[in-house]
Amino acid sequence: MIVVLKHGVSDEKKAQLIAWLQALGLRIHISDGEFQTVLGLIGDTTNVDMDLVESLEIVDSVKRVTEPFKCCNRKFHPDDMIVEIGDVKVGGGNFVMIAGPCSVESEEQIVKVAKAVKAAGAKLMRGGAFKPRTSPYDFAGLKAFGLDLLKIARQETGLPIVTELMNIMDLPLFEDVDVIQVGARNMQNYDLLRELGHLDKPILLKRGLANTLKELLMSAEYIMASGNERVMLCERGIRTFSDYTRNTLDLSAVPMLHQLTHLPVIVDPSHATGIAKLVPPMALAATASGADGLIIEVHNDPMHALCDGAQSLRPEEFTELAEKVRAIREVIA
Amino acid sequence: MIVVLKHGVSDEKKAQLIAWLQALGLRIHISDGEFQTVLGLIGDTTNVDMDLVESLEIVDSVKRVTEPFKCCNRKFHPDDMIVEIGDVKVGGGNFVMIAGPCSVESEEQIVKVAKAVKAAGAKLMRGGAFKPRTSPYDFAGLKAFGLDLLKIARQETGLPIVTELMNIMDLPLFEDVDVIQVGARNMQNYDLLRELGHLDKPILLKRGLANTLKELLMSAEYIMASGNERVMLCERGIRTFSDYTRNTLDLSAVPMLHQLTHLPVIVDPSHATGIAKLVPPMALAATASGADGLIIEVHNDPMHALCDGAQSLRPEEFTELAEKVRAIREVIA
Amino acid sequence: MIVVLKHGVSDEKKAQLIAWLQALGLRIHISDGEFQTVLGLIGDTTNVDMDLVESLEIVDSVKRVTEPFKCCNRKFHPDDMIVEIGDVKVGGGNFVMIAGPCSVESEEQIVKVAKAVKAAGAKLMRGGAFKPRTSPYDFAGLKAFGLDLLKIARQETGLPIVTELMNIMDLPLFEDVDVIQVGARNMQNYDLLRELGHLDKPILLKRGLANTLKELLMSAEYIMASGNERVMLCERGIRTFSDYTRNTLDLSAVPMLHQLTHLPVIVDPSHATGIAKLVPPMALAATASGADGLIIEVHNDPMHALCDGAQSLRPEEFTELAEKVRAIREVIA
Amino acid sequence: MIVVLKHGVSDEKKAQLIAWLQALGLRIHISDGEFQTVLGLIGDTTNVDMDLVESLEIVDSVKRVTEPFKCCNRKFHPDDMIVEIGDVKVGGGNFVMIAGPCSVESEEQIVKVAKAVKAAGAKLMRGGAFKPRTSPYDFAGLKAFGLDLLKIARQETGLPIVTELMNIMDLPLFEDVDVIQVGARNMQNYDLLRELGHLDKPILLKRGLANTLKELLMSAEYIMASGNERVMLCERGIRTFSDYTRNTLDLSAVPMLHQLTHLPVIVDPSHATGIAKLVPPMALAATASGADGLIIEVHNDPMHALCDGAQSLRPEEFTELAEKVRAIREVIA
Repeated sequence: MIVVLKHGVSDEKKAQLIAWLQALGLRIHISDGEFQTVLGLIGDTTNVDMDLVESLEIVDSVKRVTEPFKCCNRKFHPDDMIVEIGDVKVGGGNFVMIAGPCSVESEEQIVKVAKAVKAAGAKLMRGGAFKPRTSPYDFAGLKAFGLDLLKIARQETGLPIVTELMNIMDLPLFEDVDVIQVGARNMQNYDLLRELGHLDKPILLKRGLANTLKELLMSAEYIMASGNERVMLCERGIRTFSDYTRNTLDLSAVPMLHQLTHLPVIVDPSHATGIAKLVPPMALAATASGADGLIIEVHNDPMHALCDGAQSLRPEEFTELAEKVRAIREVIA
Repeated sequence: MIVVLKHGVSDEKKAQLIAWLQALGLRIHISDGEFQTVLGLIGDTTNVDMDLVESLEIVDSVKRVTEPFKCCNRKFHPDDMIVEIGDVKVGGGNFVMIAGPCSVESEEQIVKVAKAVKAAGAKLMRGGAFKPRTSPYDFAGLKAFGLDLLKIARQETGLPIVTELMNIMDLPLFEDVDVIQVGARNMQNYDLLRELGHLDKPILLKRGLANTLKELLMSAEYIMASGNERVMLCERGIRTFSDYTRNTLDLSAVPMLHQLTHLPVIVDPSHATGIAKLVPPMALAATASGADGLIIEVHNDPMHALCDGAQSLRPEEFTELAEKVRAIREVIA
Repeated sequence: MIVVLKHGVSDEKKAQLIAWLQALGLRIHISDGEFQTVLGLIGDTTNVDMDLVESLEIVDSVKRVTEPFKCCNRKFHPDDMIVEIGDVKVGGGNFVMIAGPCSVESEEQIVKVAKAVKAAGAKLMRGGAFKPRTSPYDFAGLKAFGLDLLKIARQETGLPIVTELMNIMDLPLFEDVDVIQVGARNMQNYDLLRELGHLDKPILLKRGLANTLKELLMSAEYIMASGNERVMLCERGIRTFSDYTRNTLDLSAVPMLHQLTHLPVIVDPSHATGIAKLVPPMALAATASGADGLIIEVHNDPMHALCDGAQSLRPEEFTELAEKVRAIREVIA
Repeated sequence: MIVVLKHGVSDEKKAQLIAWLQALGLRIHISDGEFQTVLGLIGDTTNVDMDLVESLEIVDSVKRVTEPFKCCNRKFHPDDMIVEIGDVKVGGGNFVMIAGPCSVESEEQIVKVAKAVKAAGAKLMRGGAFKPRTSPYDFAGLKAFGLDLLKIARQETGLPIVTELMNIMDLPLFEDVDVIQVGARNMQNYDLLRELGHLDKPILLKRGLANTLKELLMSAEYIMASGNERVMLCERGIRTFSDYTRNTLDLSAVPMLHQLTHLPVIVDPSHATGIAKLVPPMALAATASGADGLIIEVHNDPMHALCDGAQSLRPEEFTELAEKVRAIREVIA
């Protein structure tokens, strides 16, 4: 961490600050320039409150030199992490398509969709059993029964299950789930993250509506620092002033995350846009940007979907899309 | 709900849509204009998926006429709600100052600050025992022990306690707390909200970093629909492109919320700005905008605060501010 | 336009409003529902102040049914517009790569880069002679002399010139320029737009930093309503809270604009990201999203560029990118 | 400027970078720490392209220590600037109310409103003659004739005129105007700013829709660096995801700008909210936040205003507001 002092600070005040920083266990490297003094703090600065130091009267500004994330930092893990779910691999050149309905609605529906997406090339199946809904009056998922239906669909197709957990107390129900998804609204539910860090199960961590990449990585860090390294990140649109689409898909996050971290990056074009017609072009764009996978909502009968029908592809649309996705993978490989 | 059909839709398709809507239990009022047909949906439209209807090929656009929130809707509750905490009243002309440190750190600290803010006119005391932190490596609060220290401070001063709950499983520890705070990151933790709806205890619900007023009200609706009507809303800054302050305090939310809902609206200038020097002007501005109260971080020794020292006022600064706040209340009353 | 009245409005007030609307030359279609009255305004509502109507005490809400843009509206122009610059075509399936340095710096530089990008497949050359700079102390371009150098490069390569105009008074200097670019900061410089509407020359209109698609289209409308229909739109990143990249590239704008308008849509990944390493993945993503072209900064010596060196590709990087762009075009065609 | 090098950079590469920086006329202060090398650049760094340096392979990060604005920097001008318009003073403890209609519509209208706002305590009168409108089909102001009507109103009341200039070519018409307003959409119209820098006339510079405080100050710098120091800044709402109000009024900008610059800061609650009912609470809040003045839209007949009727106060509402504003000024003085 680097602390730039204001011009003309007295030696006494400077000495006080240095003593205070030393008391935090840091060594201080002083560099007196003509116009300013710069302090380099050496040692573990993870616990230094940067905002507090910056608020001091004699301090001009503070700059953190090392990122506060470690477990998920590419600098310390130069090779791509490959997350394995059964014999499905994600990351390090392994691309995965995850598909299925927003909500599990019935055995017939989930089995039908699972078979269709498998035929189209999906390697994992998604489906919500516990649904976060803005309104308390909306359908909130079939819960435990929904998980049972997902397992039936898995038995029929062999596709591993990706499904969302909203609440630590439901964790026992998720024991036989293959990948646990943390939704955007729970990205900073730190107790939940820490708990997931104790599992031996891959986590799909979605970026919050208005969270920076650094915050996303700090949330991954919560899981990894507790012991579970199998984290996949997911960009699913951020909230901006733009109002034609539900959210604004931030695809630059894909190559930027690849610079910052070794974790795989999945893109969700369905929630990002909220509009079925925009899902194929955005899925192709995400693939071209270098994403390690896609998670896409597919429903056999969007008109009667209990949730998010407006953004669901029909199986035949997904099949057509999947072919183009594979062709783009070949171009950029 | 109003559905505007595209120009030149065939009678057959129109009839199909109407039949589908009727199957949802709605009556349909058809208005055939020269250039467009408008359908008025009559009945309980709470469960109609507006996005899905809008995505249909024959539909031009959809407009919700009634807000989806009821319990917290000013239209059905024209009089201000007054939330009572012991003999402290909030709302309906009753203004409250809530003050205290970001984190409870020690008995000496919390008692000292509680006495100081009480002397300055605060009617409730704040202090974090469970702290949401972006980094897993940061100080996360004294937890249960912190709650005990808050109770000691309450005994010494008589000030009721406002403190944050992050996790349903901690709820038993909060039985003797006076007001439970839901932090910005948990504003859409729906299971938590629903659980708080079963309590007989006021809730201070903070607006999420990037949530609209409607979403804030829908979250209040979660609590109220489960039976607990004693909800206070809190504006604490939103995330924007602006980077000089930690967040952007959205004070227009205060009069706008007063139009939409009968619930009291509190403002938190400390988290909104993140900078102690900006807290007094923003606290005064919030008061002038018509807020029902302020929640302000005060610390006896900001330089050694374990958390958020940069935004904490010293007791003497808070005392001076409180006097001006009262003077502004007199101007706008 | 549809006006929804509040519940329980008196007949007298309703009649007053209707009379006022009729005085604006509109016919009113009244639809009295059980719970609300809806007025359908028929006629030219372009001049009705929607905000004013919405502010009236008896009005619940107002909804515009027809978009306020006409010349650039896909509804009235179902076929893609193809913009021709010499024998280069843009739109309607014709993809174009525009490339060149941020600023024209010298004859040697611009000729060298122009030859390189032509060899790589660019069909138009870009280069700034008049540069908008945030700081008055920054290099602001070679101005008229820069335009002369661009013309030399055109003579050497045959590539038509795309360059930015900042000021109506400079217009005479741009007579022999092939495409005039309107920069993001001038997207709502209405006098400038109107003036460009009198030219017989294609315009590349960049989206403003925080402008909606509707606003972008209204600015295109300014140019087209004055007589010049040859407008190309350009997405170049919007301003959001996200701080890892200079702007956030909004690629969903590409398919969404294609729904709303028949004008070609170009993407600028260089300004959107500000980081050379992110330009190739974002250029490929833009291509996959269905863009009609790319505008990319290429510099033979980024280290010594007078402007935006950090986001410039070297010619060999551009060549490699161009090949992949063509391969992706084949996939999505 | 401080340049932090990556860990383990070779001496050769380090020497190359230093030579390159020296060639830009800078002296380099090297500080070799245990884990990193920090270069302090001494001299005029205004022209160093920070993004370019940051993009170099051996550079970890770059930090600008001195702000790039000088003329408007509080550091070099510790005393508040007081802008004088006739005998009206703004800044340095002098508070001003500016009021009038959005657009000048007729002699009767502007004179009537001018008299009313003068009686209520306004010291300057506003009124648009040249109006920037999103749509080419909207009323764009009475132009030169509107300026004539403003002058008549000035003669009748003695109130100096504040009115917007959109285009350098209209400048001759503004010779007898007292204060020239630069609208939000023109905040980065650099040629216009530079031209205004040659005048001997106060400028009211509005913050752009999505511009940071630094960008606002850089635009003030354009005017001041050209010789005209009489600049007043104006906060008028920024664009965010929040959709209940037209813009989000960013009141923290007021005390923050006061820290950064010695220029007066005016607040425009009318354009910030777009809703007349929200103007009084936001005007009071702005006053309490320490603003040096307010600019407020007042119309004698908002229902028939040609522009922005929805956000205009009636004269009697303005009179009532003005009294409370004065009372709040007394509290915070």
